[in-house]
Amino acid sequence: MNFPSDRFKKQIDFIIEIDKIKHIFRKTRLFDGSRFENDAEHAWHFALLALVLQEYANDAIDVHKVITMALIHDIVEIDAGDVIAYDTEQRLLAEEKERKAAERIFGILPDEQRDEFKKIWNEFEERKTPEARFAAALDRFEPILQNYMTNFSTWKEHDITHSMLMKTNQHIADGSEILWQTVERMFSEALDSNAITE
Amino acid sequence: MNFPSDRFKKQIDFIIEIDKIKHIFRKTRLFDGSRFENDAEHAWHFALLALVLQEYANDAIDVHKVITMALIHDIVEIDAGDVIAYDTEQRLLAEEKERKAAERIFGILPDEQRDEFKKIWNEFEERKTPEARFAAALDRFEPILQNYMTNFSTWKEHDITHSMLMKTNQHIADGSEILWQTVERMFSEALDSNAITE
Repeated sequence: MNFPSDRFKKQIDFIIEIDKIKHIFRKTRLFDGSRFENDAEHAWHFALLALVLQEYANDAIDVHKVITMALIHDIVEIDAGDVIAYDTEQRLLAEEKERKAAERIFGILPDEQRDEFKKIWNEFEERKTPEARFAAALDRFEPILQNYMTNFSTWKEHDITHSMLMKTNQHIADGSEILWQTVERMFSEALDSNAITE
Repeated sequence: MNFPSDRFKKQIDFIIEIDKIKHIFRKTRLFDGSRFENDAEHAWHFALLALVLQEYANDAIDVHKVITMALIHDIVEIDAGDVIAYDTEQRLLAEEKERKAAERIFGILPDEQRDEFKKIWNEFEERKTPEARFAAALDRFEPILQNYMTNFSTWKEHDITHSMLMKTNQHIADGSEILWQTVERMFSEALDSNAITE
């Protein structure tokens, strides 16, 4: 195939490369419990959460930036894989792999698009701006809601305790107080029903 | 679960309902040919195409509106199912089902969000604005590129001819001349390699 320009070829190469996230499976199940979710499906649902729940962000946000974060945040997992949020040791090890993956995969794009995508990915990772804090809240809210709807399946399988849930997800409150109050009640229900321990 | 408001409950009900698009499989395969793609994966990839290829739109566009169209355009297929673009009879029959599906599924949302989502879905379907024309081009570009990369697999399986490809996809030119020139060359390659007939 002769593409109209070298620039266009790089863009198409990127589009083809990122297809691989459809093969990266997460630890959480679809809402009907039938199978695990992959990263492309998660990114789509995360973007929809941003569209529908934007009013619950603590601060004024540019929702389109949050959606862009949702769409690209897990592309690095093509190289780094998916690590459950509650495994803090493996999460730390994954960070270096993810940085290298961002260099390689966003590096397929023309230079200024590479820089733009890396910038927004870094902003998401650093959780310092209102958009990044709200995006981080939604990124956690989706699997928590999935667990809540599937009889707490992942938490039971991985022996996640109430204190692990509270600690690992506390940054949801930085992005959205209302979402944090909602997940706190879900954690309490899981504890009260003996699905998880303290 | 007691949600903080009736409004919030409606929004969560919508978020859970739309999970079903992960079970709607298309006729095109992932780029490695390993399996068919589902609607959530397609919507994610379509949104990424908008981000990466926005410069090739014929007219000035609000790319965020195109991305919103990408994210929500196939939600109606939860009720209406996926119909291959080249089956013009079935596509016409699907249109009425899709309108009803839009009423039901977007109707789960609070009223003003329902109206907003229906408005943008209608705009996409009508293909009259620059954003809708470019979105329609990208919606076709993804499966064409997938077919190109998987040895024209869907076109061969469904006996799609060169003239069907040219006719069904000609509206790509209304959204992006450059994308149209690119897919025209892909169609020619398919014909020249005898994967399809005239």
